[in-house]
Amino acid sequence: MRQSFIILFLIFAAMTNAQEKPLIQSTILGLEKAALDRWCKGDPTGFLEISAPDVVYFDPFLEKRINGLEELTKLYLPLKGQVNADHFEMLDPLVQATDKMAVLTFNFRSQEGEKLHKWNCTEVYRLEADGTWKICQTHWSLTKPELK
Amino acid sequence: MRQSFIILFLIFAAMTNAQEKPLIQSTILGLEKAALDRWCKGDPTGFLEISAPDVVYFDPFLEKRINGLEELTKLYLPLKGQVNADHFEMLDPLVQATDKMAVLTFNFRSQEGEKLHKWNCTEVYRLEADGTWKICQTHWSLTKPELK
Repeated sequence: MRQSFIILFLIFAAMTNAQEKPLIQSTILGLEKAALDRWCKGDPTGFLEISAPDVVYFDPFLEKRINGLEELTKLYLPLKGQVNADHFEMLDPLVQATDKMAVLTFNFRSQEGEKLHKWNCTEVYRLEADGTWKICQTHWSLTKPELK
Repeated sequence: MRQSFIILFLIFAAMTNAQEKPLIQSTILGLEKAALDRWCKGDPTGFLEISAPDVVYFDPFLEKRINGLEELTKLYLPLKGQVNADHFEMLDPLVQATDKMAVLTFNFRSQEGEKLHKWNCTEVYRLEADGTWKICQTHWSLTKPELK
């Protein structure tokens, strides 16, 4: 009886795990889209709210990686009201997930007036102790930048 | 007796997990350094050998993300013998790990003659079914590129 219960539990656990990935994927895509939506309207706090205390961050304008939410907050808050995209698109977003960590990659396009911005983006999300997914790594870079 | 065994097993599992992170970190740093060493001597196959079949990849010269080891192989093989760095350095490498996935970030500097190359790098490693860690995501970008 006890053995049957354990076997049933293991089967259930395996099934649960199998079902988890689509849920992880849709959760992460939802978080990212909502934060991008706020970002493109000039509100960088959406990303700060879903970033972990130990988040690390790259963008093309920094000499070195940013370490931690405090440093990222100092970078982001002065950008409030600076971005105003008419339209944005995540091209071919992909989530590669395990049960506690997942990586989201996509090409990003945004339109501000006549200007089309093209970016590469990698976000790593981690399942935190409180059951929420938070970003622990962000990497934004320019797609085919026109170099001097 | 059975209960005691289960409790002991759970304690052992928890301890094992606690001890795993430094091992994961050193494993991943070792894999990355060895592949970079080969890369800087003109051998791109080191990275191909430790990349997963579903690896995704960004660099600044691509219009879109690369999807899969086959596409990455087509990009990398023609680069054989093209890179010859006198010296390279991983600045402040950091591994943020869970038991099955880990993200490695670092600033990269390499010297080829008079030329200093500066990059940002994010690698996501995943523990595969065969017990090896493989790269499932690579993102290379230029640090503060001089734009037109």
